[in-house]
Amino acid sequence: MKIVFASGNKGKLREAAEIFEGFEILPISAFPNWKAPEETGWTFLQNAVIKAEAASKLSNDYAVLADDSGLLVSVLDGRPGIFSARFSEEGTDAANRAKLLRELSGKSDRSAFFVCSAVMIFPDKTMIAAEGRCSGRIIESERGGNGFGYDPLFVPEGFDRTMAELSEEEKNLLSHRGKAFRRLIGILNRKTAATF
Amino acid sequence: MKIVFASGNKGKLREAAEIFEGFEILPISAFPNWKAPEETGWTFLQNAVIKAEAASKLSNDYAVLADDSGLLVSVLDGRPGIFSARFSEEGTDAANRAKLLRELSGKSDRSAFFVCSAVMIFPDKTMIAAEGRCSGRIIESERGGNGFGYDPLFVPEGFDRTMAELSEEEKNLLSHRGKAFRRLIGILNRKTAATF
Repeated sequence: MKIVFASGNKGKLREAAEIFEGFEILPISAFPNWKAPEETGWTFLQNAVIKAEAASKLSNDYAVLADDSGLLVSVLDGRPGIFSARFSEEGTDAANRAKLLRELSGKSDRSAFFVCSAVMIFPDKTMIAAEGRCSGRIIESERGGNGFGYDPLFVPEGFDRTMAELSEEEKNLLSHRGKAFRRLIGILNRKTAATF
Repeated sequence: MKIVFASGNKGKLREAAEIFEGFEILPISAFPNWKAPEETGWTFLQNAVIKAEAASKLSNDYAVLADDSGLLVSVLDGRPGIFSARFSEEGTDAANRAKLLRELSGKSDRSAFFVCSAVMIFPDKTMIAAEGRCSGRIIESERGGNGFGYDPLFVPEGFDRTMAELSEEEKNLLSHRGKAFRRLIGILNRKTAATF
């Protein structure tokens, strides 16, 4: 089955291709008329649905996959949450991480968790969705060159290394996105058996 | 399986209970702290997700069901669409129908279709969704006392009677909501076999 992934993020695309083993994951750039929709939802799930719906309008030949993910920091009352990718004014990974470190400066409670809502829409307009979470803590300075986003600052529960120091395989096993995608595949496999 | 239906509409609740045969459908009024969320989405699917998410926060013991439906009239460029229940200022069924008749007065193209997006969210935060459509035309004056909303003005394709002149069983067989709910049950049955 061919699945179009509604994200311009190369790191996410690589993760999706790895986890959706046996499926063909196409980048959204295969559709030159793709325009990322405004993320007007107020939850991860709503924003993932908005992206998946926009992508599903481009073609009836493919299933589409979209996710929305973010970091929730306890002492920041759950921020940056759905605004994780737009936390700093610049909106780059580096600027977002720098802002997070500034806001956590001097705080002793560094606990946080990642959330991912992943959604698939099929040509028959049915949809499936799943959520994944990954708990951990924010360290004082960046470590590691893998991953993207807040990965160099996030140490998953039970680990000493940051998410950016894990191999892709390790990250996919424990990450919020890995969990959400695998749950989605679980539903998908039962669904496909009957409908495709 | 117990399913909470996130709607205050008694007509919809009756339809849901009829179609979800073998499941126990509970009204959202079973939860006194339920507050209907603002429907800020710009598609039926998004608004159905918003309602389902709000309901799913009330309890982890039940699956929740929500739908968003509306009427799209060709000559009105798809209006009232997602604003079907809030078409007139009063927002009552009668006032909405009166406004529709005024706007279609003198128009020869009376074709229209109903759309329903139906969503279920489970305690494990997975979600399934499906869409149903029903094509037909808007007649010049109301007929029939069954159903609700625009039913007395809508004659489904291949019928002479309005949706409000059909029996509940007939309506559920061909209506947008009936189709969406049955597609949902199709996915649900494959899902439940493996997860509940």
